[in-house]
Amino acid sequence: MKKETSRRHFIRNLSVSASLLTALPLAHSQTSENDKRRKITLDKDDTILFQGDSITYWHRKLDSKAVNDSQSIGSGYALLTASRLLYQHPEKNLKIYNRGISGNTVPDLEKRWDEDCLAIKPDVLSILIGVNDYTVKKRDNKGSAQLYREGYDRLLERTKSAFPDIKLIIAEPFVIKGLLYVDESWFPGFNDYRQVAKELAEKYHAAFIPLHSLFEKALERAPADYWSGDGLHASMAGAQLMSDAWLKAFN
Amino acid sequence: MKKETSRRHFIRNLSVSASLLTALPLAHSQTSENDKRRKITLDKDDTILFQGDSITYWHRKLDSKAVNDSQSIGSGYALLTASRLLYQHPEKNLKIYNRGISGNTVPDLEKRWDEDCLAIKPDVLSILIGVNDYTVKKRDNKGSAQLYREGYDRLLERTKSAFPDIKLIIAEPFVIKGLLYVDESWFPGFNDYRQVAKELAEKYHAAFIPLHSLFEKALERAPADYWSGDGLHASMAGAQLMSDAWLKAFN
Repeated sequence: MKKETSRRHFIRNLSVSASLLTALPLAHSQTSENDKRRKITLDKDDTILFQGDSITYWHRKLDSKAVNDSQSIGSGYALLTASRLLYQHPEKNLKIYNRGISGNTVPDLEKRWDEDCLAIKPDVLSILIGVNDYTVKKRDNKGSAQLYREGYDRLLERTKSAFPDIKLIIAEPFVIKGLLYVDESWFPGFNDYRQVAKELAEKYHAAFIPLHSLFEKALERAPADYWSGDGLHASMAGAQLMSDAWLKAFN
Repeated sequence: MKKETSRRHFIRNLSVSASLLTALPLAHSQTSENDKRRKITLDKDDTILFQGDSITYWHRKLDSKAVNDSQSIGSGYALLTASRLLYQHPEKNLKIYNRGISGNTVPDLEKRWDEDCLAIKPDVLSILIGVNDYTVKKRDNKGSAQLYREGYDRLLERTKSAFPDIKLIIAEPFVIKGLLYVDESWFPGFNDYRQVAKELAEKYHAAFIPLHSLFEKALERAPADYWSGDGLHASMAGAQLMSDAWLKAFN
């Protein structure tokens, strides 16, 4: 084949490829665990709210309520995810907020839910909560996986009652073993909290982000201290891992 | 075609598509201006330094010198770029720093270059500087594009003398017209500064990031205030645009 012909042939194939690209996620969903998971479709004018504890908070400016603002969103996975979504979808007029607060448990979220969730009227609500519920149980012997389940269930029920069409994202609480705060004594106790989040995601038809499993898998690529400083909070590389997992939850 | 046959046909096409995907960047490089640009190859143990003004600084913690740390890197394009590089290359043991400072011009960089660049011994040095050099000229009638060129040239010469193998990234100074600080009176004066950066990138074999051109093109996708609040500083969407351009400078 002459060079020009070869190039033309390539370009023709390319347009076939482009149409297949659109179809790829569907094809993958037959085999990949990741793509079998429920996905979120973003609509025009959607408001997206990130909720959780310090991992979500990550140094956001607590007194700022500005929309689509890096200082209000902090510098963790919420920023990485929001920046990508805003860049990708200028036509959607998305409004993105972060209301994560350090140390929060499910009971903490329940107390501030009217102001810090319902008042914002989110169309997409993302929640990462649970590691502090387990810490409180482990350290102070207060709470239990059962109380975590009941509280989290109430929170979601309340949200669904207020906004029946809300699109939910529920993330699996995670830790990274072998670092400052996390040793073997966390297991199997912590697994109950992971299981609760997974079951509630199923119950409420939420997109589920399997963070603990993803970080376990990431240990094949780099040691624990590459992904987290203390076992609880993600490093920059860890935040990018999280953000990529979030982005996969969107169509 | 029956459903099963159709599916098989689809899957067969899919494997063709996968091999085309690998070939895509190469094919693009024949035509795309973007991929013709010089690229940076990251090596094991590389230290990467982001230098510049407020756009690079973007709310980093000035008293922290920690490596690969989101608070030390801020929440702008440097964070987005560093997080992605760290996630992508765990095996490379990259060390990433940000030393951008608000309001800086080339003369400011020259003053603090020993401490804030040479002492860090970067293998990869990224510089975005120039918009304040132009502001000083426009507002206070101090400096000129010629002085910007001479100072920037000295800075690069000094860096190359200290580290002959350094890999350089030079970004085009940019503004977004029609917002708070930037009106038509900026042009054509500001273009001289863009041109200087481009020519110095060529002279020093640097990867060049054509930010101003990219933001001009982005106006086809969304209005000016989607990409910047004031015409000088990028929004979250704008920071992602910048970061994607930076990432394209790496092999």
